[in-house]
Amino acid sequence: VPPRFHARDLDPETGHATLTNEEAGHLTRVLRLGPGADVDVFDGHGRMFHAVVTSARPGRVELRVLAPAPAASEPAVRVTLVMSALKADKMDAVIRDATMMGAQAIQPVVSTRSEVSLLAIAKGRRVDRWTRVAVASAKQSGRAIVPSIEPPLPLDEWLSVSIGGTRVALVEPTAGTGVSFSSVPRAPAVSLIVGPEGGWTPDEMRAFDTEGVTGVSLGPRTLRAEAAPLVAMAALFEAWSAWAWGEVRSER
Amino acid sequence: VPPRFHARDLDPETGHATLTNEEAGHLTRVLRLGPGADVDVFDGHGRMFHAVVTSARPGRVELRVLAPAPAASEPAVRVTLVMSALKADKMDAVIRDATMMGAQAIQPVVSTRSEVSLLAIAKGRRVDRWTRVAVASAKQSGRAIVPSIEPPLPLDEWLSVSIGGTRVALVEPTAGTGVSFSSVPRAPAVSLIVGPEGGWTPDEMRAFDTEGVTGVSLGPRTLRAEAAPLVAMAALFEAWSAWAWGEVRSER
Repeated sequence: VPPRFHARDLDPETGHATLTNEEAGHLTRVLRLGPGADVDVFDGHGRMFHAVVTSARPGRVELRVLAPAPAASEPAVRVTLVMSALKADKMDAVIRDATMMGAQAIQPVVSTRSEVSLLAIAKGRRVDRWTRVAVASAKQSGRAIVPSIEPPLPLDEWLSVSIGGTRVALVEPTAGTGVSFSSVPRAPAVSLIVGPEGGWTPDEMRAFDTEGVTGVSLGPRTLRAEAAPLVAMAALFEAWSAWAWGEVRSER
Repeated sequence: VPPRFHARDLDPETGHATLTNEEAGHLTRVLRLGPGADVDVFDGHGRMFHAVVTSARPGRVELRVLAPAPAASEPAVRVTLVMSALKADKMDAVIRDATMMGAQAIQPVVSTRSEVSLLAIAKGRRVDRWTRVAVASAKQSGRAIVPSIEPPLPLDEWLSVSIGGTRVALVEPTAGTGVSFSSVPRAPAVSLIVGPEGGWTPDEMRAFDTEGVTGVSLGPRTLRAEAAPLVAMAALFEAWSAWAWGEVRSER
C-alpha cells in the first residue's frame, strides 16, 4: 500500500492536488519522498486516488492525481460520537479510536463531571489538535473520510439542538436503566453519547429521559472512559450488522 | 466503593487475609491507610469480601475478613484471549483491556510476525508484569476474577494442544475468509486468537483452516493490533448476548 496523504482541497477534475503543512512535512521530512514517488491522496470526504509526486518542498508538495484508489468501506450507520471531553491524552485516544472504527463526526461536549472546560478546549486549540489526530487515524485505518470535529458545546445545549434522530447514551450498569444495543431500533444515523470518568449526574440522567435519549449499557464491568466509545461502536455495529455498507443484514 | 485489594491466598474460613508486596505497598504508601480502614479484598478467583485492616506495614498488611462484597458479574462465555505478543506497552494495554472486558485467561503466543520472542518474554519476566497489570485492571473494573496469564507458547504449539473447544481467529477483511461473530455457533467457552501488527502469514492462515479454527473479521477498516481484542470481545458479547451471566438471551 502506498503511503496515504490528506489533501483537503483535492479536486480530481483539475488533475492536481497540493499538500501543505503537516502533510507536506510528513512526505518530505519523515518519509523522505520526492518527485516520482507513488502515493495515495484522499480528500477526507470519501474520495481516494493514486497520485505521483511532481514537486516536493517541506512546506508544499504538488501531486498529479491518477486513477481512483480503493478506500476502506464505511459503516452502514452514520455514527456521531458525542463525547464528554476527557483530559488531553485520553481524548486524543478517543478521537483516534472513533476514527478507526468509522465515526462520521465527533461532537465534543462538556458535561457536569467533565475534566476540562470549554475555555480550556478553546485556549488549548484542542479542535485543531483533534482534527490532526483524526487525519492520522483515517490514514492508518484506510478510510477516505475524516470525521468532522464539531465545535464543542455544553451537553445540555447539544441536547436541545440535536432533536430528531436516534440518540443513545451509555449509562452505568448500576443505573439499571440501560438496554442493549440489539433492542434499539435500527436507524441510518445515530448519536452515541459517552460520559466522562465520573459518569452522569442525576440531573443529566433525567435530561436524557426527558429528551427521549435511550440509555444503553455494556455489561456490568466498569469500562475505562476512553475505551467506552470503542466498545460501544463495536457492540452497535455487531447488533445492527452495520460494520460495512453492503453487509448482509439479518433482520431480527 | 472501598478500595479493593488482591489477596491470592484469601481463605474466608479463617477470617483473616494477608496483603504482601505491591498490594501491601499500595495500601500503606499510596493510599496511606492503616488499622481500622475499611477495604474490599478479592482472591482473583471470583470471591470478594468486605474487610477491615488490623495491622499495616509496607511489606505486610493483615485484614479481618467480613461479609461477602458484590463483584461485577462475569460474561456468560468464558473467553481465552490467545494474543500474539506485542511490544511492551501495547501488550500491557491488551492485558489491561482484556481483563476489563472479562477475559477468563490470556494465552500469549508467538507467531511468525510477532515483534517479540519467547526468549525476550522470559528474560523480561513479562508474565509477572502482565499478571500485575491484570490485577490492577480487575480492581478498576470491579471484577473478583483475575485472568490467568498462561505460559507463552509458539502459535503452532498452542494450536496443537488446544484441540476441542470453539476457536476463532481474527483475520484481515482482505483475506475474504472471515465471517461475523453472529454466524459462529454459541459455545460456553471460546478461544479468541488475535494476530500481531503484521497479521498472519499464509502458512498460519492454512494452519487455522486445517485445525478447524474459524476466521472472523470485524469490518473493512484496519484496526490497531492492540485495539483488536477489545473490539472483538465487544462484538462477541453483543453477538452472543453474553455480556453477563443471567442476561436474557434472545435466540436467533
